[in-house]
Amino acid sequence: MSTTSFGILLIRCKDQKGIVARVASFLHDFGGNILDSDHHTDRQTGDFLMRTVFDLSEFQLPRDAIHASFAPIAKVFGIASELHFSDKRPRVGLLVSKYEHCLVDLLQRQRRGELAVDIPVIISNHPDCQFWADRFEIPYCHLPVLPGKKPEQEQQVLAELHRLQVDVVVMARYMQILSSTFLDTVGCPVINIHHSFLPAFIGARPYHQAYDRGVKIIGATAHYATQDLDEGPIIEQDVMRIGHRDSIEDLVRKGRDLETFVLARAVRNHVEHRVLVYGKKTVIFD
Amino acid sequence: MSTTSFGILLIRCKDQKGIVARVASFLHDFGGNILDSDHHTDRQTGDFLMRTVFDLSEFQLPRDAIHASFAPIAKVFGIASELHFSDKRPRVGLLVSKYEHCLVDLLQRQRRGELAVDIPVIISNHPDCQFWADRFEIPYCHLPVLPGKKPEQEQQVLAELHRLQVDVVVMARYMQILSSTFLDTVGCPVINIHHSFLPAFIGARPYHQAYDRGVKIIGATAHYATQDLDEGPIIEQDVMRIGHRDSIEDLVRKGRDLETFVLARAVRNHVEHRVLVYGKKTVIFD
Amino acid sequence: MSTTSFGILLIRCKDQKGIVARVASFLHDFGGNILDSDHHTDRQTGDFLMRTVFDLSEFQLPRDAIHASFAPIAKVFGIASELHFSDKRPRVGLLVSKYEHCLVDLLQRQRRGELAVDIPVIISNHPDCQFWADRFEIPYCHLPVLPGKKPEQEQQVLAELHRLQVDVVVMARYMQILSSTFLDTVGCPVINIHHSFLPAFIGARPYHQAYDRGVKIIGATAHYATQDLDEGPIIEQDVMRIGHRDSIEDLVRKGRDLETFVLARAVRNHVEHRVLVYGKKTVIFD
Amino acid sequence: MSTTSFGILLIRCKDQKGIVARVASFLHDFGGNILDSDHHTDRQTGDFLMRTVFDLSEFQLPRDAIHASFAPIAKVFGIASELHFSDKRPRVGLLVSKYEHCLVDLLQRQRRGELAVDIPVIISNHPDCQFWADRFEIPYCHLPVLPGKKPEQEQQVLAELHRLQVDVVVMARYMQILSSTFLDTVGCPVINIHHSFLPAFIGARPYHQAYDRGVKIIGATAHYATQDLDEGPIIEQDVMRIGHRDSIEDLVRKGRDLETFVLARAVRNHVEHRVLVYGKKTVIFD
Repeated sequence: MSTTSFGILLIRCKDQKGIVARVASFLHDFGGNILDSDHHTDRQTGDFLMRTVFDLSEFQLPRDAIHASFAPIAKVFGIASELHFSDKRPRVGLLVSKYEHCLVDLLQRQRRGELAVDIPVIISNHPDCQFWADRFEIPYCHLPVLPGKKPEQEQQVLAELHRLQVDVVVMARYMQILSSTFLDTVGCPVINIHHSFLPAFIGARPYHQAYDRGVKIIGATAHYATQDLDEGPIIEQDVMRIGHRDSIEDLVRKGRDLETFVLARAVRNHVEHRVLVYGKKTVIFD
Repeated sequence: MSTTSFGILLIRCKDQKGIVARVASFLHDFGGNILDSDHHTDRQTGDFLMRTVFDLSEFQLPRDAIHASFAPIAKVFGIASELHFSDKRPRVGLLVSKYEHCLVDLLQRQRRGELAVDIPVIISNHPDCQFWADRFEIPYCHLPVLPGKKPEQEQQVLAELHRLQVDVVVMARYMQILSSTFLDTVGCPVINIHHSFLPAFIGARPYHQAYDRGVKIIGATAHYATQDLDEGPIIEQDVMRIGHRDSIEDLVRKGRDLETFVLARAVRNHVEHRVLVYGKKTVIFD
Repeated sequence: MSTTSFGILLIRCKDQKGIVARVASFLHDFGGNILDSDHHTDRQTGDFLMRTVFDLSEFQLPRDAIHASFAPIAKVFGIASELHFSDKRPRVGLLVSKYEHCLVDLLQRQRRGELAVDIPVIISNHPDCQFWADRFEIPYCHLPVLPGKKPEQEQQVLAELHRLQVDVVVMARYMQILSSTFLDTVGCPVINIHHSFLPAFIGARPYHQAYDRGVKIIGATAHYATQDLDEGPIIEQDVMRIGHRDSIEDLVRKGRDLETFVLARAVRNHVEHRVLVYGKKTVIFD
Repeated sequence: MSTTSFGILLIRCKDQKGIVARVASFLHDFGGNILDSDHHTDRQTGDFLMRTVFDLSEFQLPRDAIHASFAPIAKVFGIASELHFSDKRPRVGLLVSKYEHCLVDLLQRQRRGELAVDIPVIISNHPDCQFWADRFEIPYCHLPVLPGKKPEQEQQVLAELHRLQVDVVVMARYMQILSSTFLDTVGCPVINIHHSFLPAFIGARPYHQAYDRGVKIIGATAHYATQDLDEGPIIEQDVMRIGHRDSIEDLVRKGRDLETFVLARAVRNHVEHRVLVYGKKTVIFD
């Protein structure tokens, strides 16, 4: 599935008879072999979500006509749809503060070809990660948060992200809370990594909270940032067993590994268009 | 999806264009709403496997005519198919020896409604588990393996399984190796639980082998029994971390938990027709 | 370490020089070979906790004189200590409501010899589990909670537990909240199993909360019951990955397995005197 | 335990009465507060292993006299002992081939302070990882394996390792099998990462083997390299669930994460002197 290009059709609507058959026929009738298809119906809410990957090589319509041709079907079923192409590399804007572990991990994966994305910029409120930006030859944009000037800094961040036309923002341990204004204006999804097993230990210093509570397992959660802090739809979570010998410093250290691969998996699923949000939840078609 | 009945269509063929669309249309055209559908293409072998669950309540064909109506499509695509109905409870024949943990677990799950199966018999080469058969009110058939009389005992086991028309045999820590003759004759799948993470520690006393090798993790594997000991298609595996403080007895004790829930998950997936075997491998549509 | 008896000395005090050497010498000087020893110092609080297992077979003091002989050392170091003997089987009082999975699991483990305890009674506010009590031949005490009569019922439960001189109470999915009065009066530790990864999803219907939040992992937590609901010291936790295909019923079903083995591990650690509580936390010497 | 220096005493002998007390008293009598202590007795072999960490700040002997002062006790008990100091940074020689993921991970951890080691050289049979050596400013030594010249290359590797006086060699996906001559001569432990859950899938292309066998879980194993390929004492293992949708490329990709953190944990445990080898097994005091 790697070398040739394929289309990825995402569908959301209310569940109703015949959708699967109708979508499959649409693609088949135009010569688009279905390579992979998965769907989900939430029995409680009646939401239907579907992801279909199809071969473009013998498709009888030009790319830019496909979505329009699907429109009549979408209308009949009340479908909200997206169409992506596997050879279009999403542009990822990275936000970081001082900690470099998630950043370096994402940069490495991108360099190695695990993440088929472009990274036009690393934006940070601190100078520390310039070191890594240089090593990976990614432009680094240092926008410090000056006292009383947070809104101004956010505007600068936004301007940079807009200028570079990023498709998704990834907060790779960016330690600033984004304002509602920012989230309303950014115009693309924002992925955050929280260093706890949400909804446990919302807010600041979750490892300290975990240590104080005496939990036997710590976690990390990647989620879409929304206006409600740490309440956005969860993309990925994972956990690690700890013991009484682990100090807070050990939790922080062990947690770095968790944060790193939880965020990496979330970003990968997002940029491969495997994540569908509905309500406060996500469906991951992996 | 629980109260009403539904059909489960399983398909195996070589991958080719239009299968998904054709199957979906077939079901849709007869009024069978697709509740769940999943398929898989093995890119290496070209095998295509699919499981589709559809609502029977408004299906316009009587049950016993559905499969025949699908035959022409199956012929065109070279499909091998099975059709099951969710309200037909598979009949499970349980084989045990002395250890009761897997047995009691399966009996409990069945009693609780987690496993929608009938259990017409527990067959054992030892009398020990009669205790549990009595408590769960399942017929117990004690067929000891007398010296030099193993073939005769196997014939008795087979006769009992055939008489009771079981759909699947589950070796819940049955400590006898079934002969090729048995497996050729039994006429239904046989699920075994091996107390190691296969292919590590094939054969006898795997916990002793694990202890001697000094592994840091132990496992259990549920697989279909085939002529090649411990080589059959794997249905489910799981593992557990151990430490140097664990003696062989600790491995045996901890391993019981693993064996128990690995076998339970495998049986559940099998009886819900979620397991498709191809070659030496399985696809689990869960 | 199985057939002969051994002593288990538990120690809590403030960390100070020479404790380990002093305790080891005390035991050695009386001929008590140390079979196992583990200790922990909490660097933040300065608490020191230690568990030492020693051979009794050549110990030069009679059992009932050992603890008194240790008293002078305890006084010097400000030690709070407990002395247990491995051949004294703790008496466990089981509380259940309608769900039987944890109950049957504990009864099975006890019968199999995994839990070296006596179970003099199963107390329930419902009649349902009588079925299992009969099968395992344990007395069943049905004490329903009548409207407005909860305090009276608690008094009956207490009276029964006291009459039977239980050493620990295990709430094996007992769906009543125990009052402060009960916990103040019961006179022994009470272990509860909560069906979430605490502190996430405190309170009622945690699987529903987990489903609504869209978490990717569910958990279970065994903890000592205290006056603050779901806030007691955590003994054991474990988790399980779930997916979007899992309905609330699936979470409940999968969660049963988690609850079962998390509670079993917690009870085993407790009755083997491996759990030391300090502040709101536990140390598990396993 | 971070800022001040401490001593780490490792002990191996046959189990016998009074060892724990004697060692604790030795340290205590010289003013060495025991910060951490753990020991293990293998009941089958009678081996006794112990790791004790003690404060050096008020120790009444100079460092270089401690081990000699312990010698009489070691003699009485037949103890083989090692004494390490926490502020002595082990020197790690890294061997790599083309894959960079383990290498970069270790370099990052070292740079971040997670691994308190010096890395005087990266040796490789390929030029590829020069890129990373440059970025982390570590000398890179490219020693290609020319046809028929493998013994000569090994001699060059050895010469470099000896010249730099490394304390441990880490094969961070070094794809050459080290000869017996090399292992006999290197004079320090060699840690390897094998990309399977040993003893499953010994030898070449373990992910291909895993894919063909249809396992549901893949693993990675860090072990000491010995003359018997993939048979050395295991230090650390971990696993990851896979599914039928995972191609061999997916296994390779997912496996990289496993290899990375399994090797990192093994190296950390080794350089913190937490690993004691006895026979073909290890005890990890963590």
